[in-house]
Amino acid sequence: MRKTIIGVMGGSVADEKTAQNAREMGRLIAENGWTLLSGGRPTGVMQASVSGAKEAGGLTIGVLYDEDRELAAKDLDIVIPTGMGAARNIINVLASDVVVACRGTGGTLSEIAMALRFGRPVVLLDFDPGESFLNAGALGCKWALAATPEDAAKKVGEYLKELGR
Amino acid sequence: MRKTIIGVMGGSVADEKTAQNAREMGRLIAENGWTLLSGGRPTGVMQASVSGAKEAGGLTIGVLYDEDRELAAKDLDIVIPTGMGAARNIINVLASDVVVACRGTGGTLSEIAMALRFGRPVVLLDFDPGESFLNAGALGCKWALAATPEDAAKKVGEYLKELGR
Amino acid sequence: MRKTIIGVMGGSVADEKTAQNAREMGRLIAENGWTLLSGGRPTGVMQASVSGAKEAGGLTIGVLYDEDRELAAKDLDIVIPTGMGAARNIINVLASDVVVACRGTGGTLSEIAMALRFGRPVVLLDFDPGESFLNAGALGCKWALAATPEDAAKKVGEYLKELGR
Amino acid sequence: MRKTIIGVMGGSVADEKTAQNAREMGRLIAENGWTLLSGGRPTGVMQASVSGAKEAGGLTIGVLYDEDRELAAKDLDIVIPTGMGAARNIINVLASDVVVACRGTGGTLSEIAMALRFGRPVVLLDFDPGESFLNAGALGCKWALAATPEDAAKKVGEYLKELGR
Repeated sequence: MRKTIIGVMGGSVADEKTAQNAREMGRLIAENGWTLLSGGRPTGVMQASVSGAKEAGGLTIGVLYDEDRELAAKDLDIVIPTGMGAARNIINVLASDVVVACRGTGGTLSEIAMALRFGRPVVLLDFDPGESFLNAGALGCKWALAATPEDAAKKVGEYLKELGR
Repeated sequence: MRKTIIGVMGGSVADEKTAQNAREMGRLIAENGWTLLSGGRPTGVMQASVSGAKEAGGLTIGVLYDEDRELAAKDLDIVIPTGMGAARNIINVLASDVVVACRGTGGTLSEIAMALRFGRPVVLLDFDPGESFLNAGALGCKWALAATPEDAAKKVGEYLKELGR
Repeated sequence: MRKTIIGVMGGSVADEKTAQNAREMGRLIAENGWTLLSGGRPTGVMQASVSGAKEAGGLTIGVLYDEDRELAAKDLDIVIPTGMGAARNIINVLASDVVVACRGTGGTLSEIAMALRFGRPVVLLDFDPGESFLNAGALGCKWALAATPEDAAKKVGEYLKELGR
Repeated sequence: MRKTIIGVMGGSVADEKTAQNAREMGRLIAENGWTLLSGGRPTGVMQASVSGAKEAGGLTIGVLYDEDRELAAKDLDIVIPTGMGAARNIINVLASDVVVACRGTGGTLSEIAMALRFGRPVVLLDFDPGESFLNAGALGCKWALAATPEDAAKKVGEYLKELGR
């Protein structure tokens, strides 16, 4: 049976609060029995979310920017190097049932934009790039702001229910 | 000598004013001796900008979403089918010296986000997705709002001068 | 711990013997505790190898040609739509520790060529595109012909041992 | 009007004869009024073919492996950085009306395989990866061996005529 995949997106550099949120988010994803997908780099939100999910015994997938498998987050179960650079962002989005954005800059914003475009619900964790942007993504696109990882996980659960998963 | 490429991004569906702006933008790009690059589809902002550039005798490049060369805008000089879907958005950005965004939805917003991320100046023509989004793209990223194609072309020229082109 | 991934490549159309080989190959991959990766389409070698692996309780990943998750092989655990068409072939290769080619045409041959180029050992199951091709791939590239799925699985195991996995 | 694009593929390292062939091939492409497309790196067959085409006043396009525009062949007119690594090989193929392969290893072989798969005729210049490979590419695929750049250009011209260009 197809596993439910939650994509956690965010920067390769993260401040302490954001890294903590990402780690907690990873833990909650694993505890809910969902699979974590991230950009898979060994830094920032990517490493933090993977570490959190592994602490809770979850399955983790990383879709890497680089060609080299060695540039993967520690403890990843499934390492998918692409060597495609930013072109791999669309894969992160399309492979996810729901996308969680833990702050981030241009790369993450491009993933949010594509998630809205391709009908993937987006939960923005402690991050608000503004309604003008979020509502411009697509007609009827789904997004929600969440203050804490707990709130975000609850919202993810609601979106999954709407999706019939 | 490497040609100066101006990328015009926007939706495959465009209202009349936006299509007119895109056409005028294409014309101004050609008149300035710049090469026009677009997503290359035969509809919306893509077709309109190509038509405008060709009316003024410019060189036009389309980087297609599809595998099939027949799904290209009319009058394109250089047709580059990718079959890569939205993954080709990053190519539109990286190949451009300056990006002009003529409204659009998620696809265009993802291109704006990546342009900011990869240091390509962005001119937003009659389109404002909000400062929260635009300033989150990257430290020191360059963007400007423009009300008309004439304003946009002037701004493009200034960015090119800053880039030493 | 990073899972060992064996990529099974082959056509979306397969004759009966090839489909049977692919199914048996999938089963052997699962029985050895390896993870199966394929192009993930619901036909030919892709579906057959996934079905075989699932019969033996293995973990299966599909990296899809298409954008649409519904165009995935039945019983896939992890569905990764790319919408990238043939550009996703390189992902199949880079994500695999060893590649098994079950016949196939141009798409599969491009994957074999890239596997040789990127240092992934290739086992050719009941398929011989010729030494002139196979040895041109790269200096010191590793490939082996195998007559049966059992031979192929044995060869995969030897390559994994050489790789220290 | 859409320009006729001839893709010249080959290694980033080239022996003297191959480099000379690539340069001469580039010159002949330009003299025939065709546009040259290559992988656009500043070395090997890529640089040589671009230099040849520019000597004859032709238009040249490079679709780069890298993100960085500075890693482009000298004298390229149109530089398209992709940052996609080997995933950009499919673009080289799809954008070409006819593909000329000037020797090369795995990367070039993957391009030949995809050209055969996507119906682009292939001319192999002083290079023979074997009929077992070439005929396995696709049913009815078109390829020809050529001993010299002059032979190759003649063959390209014949394929273009068959394609109605």
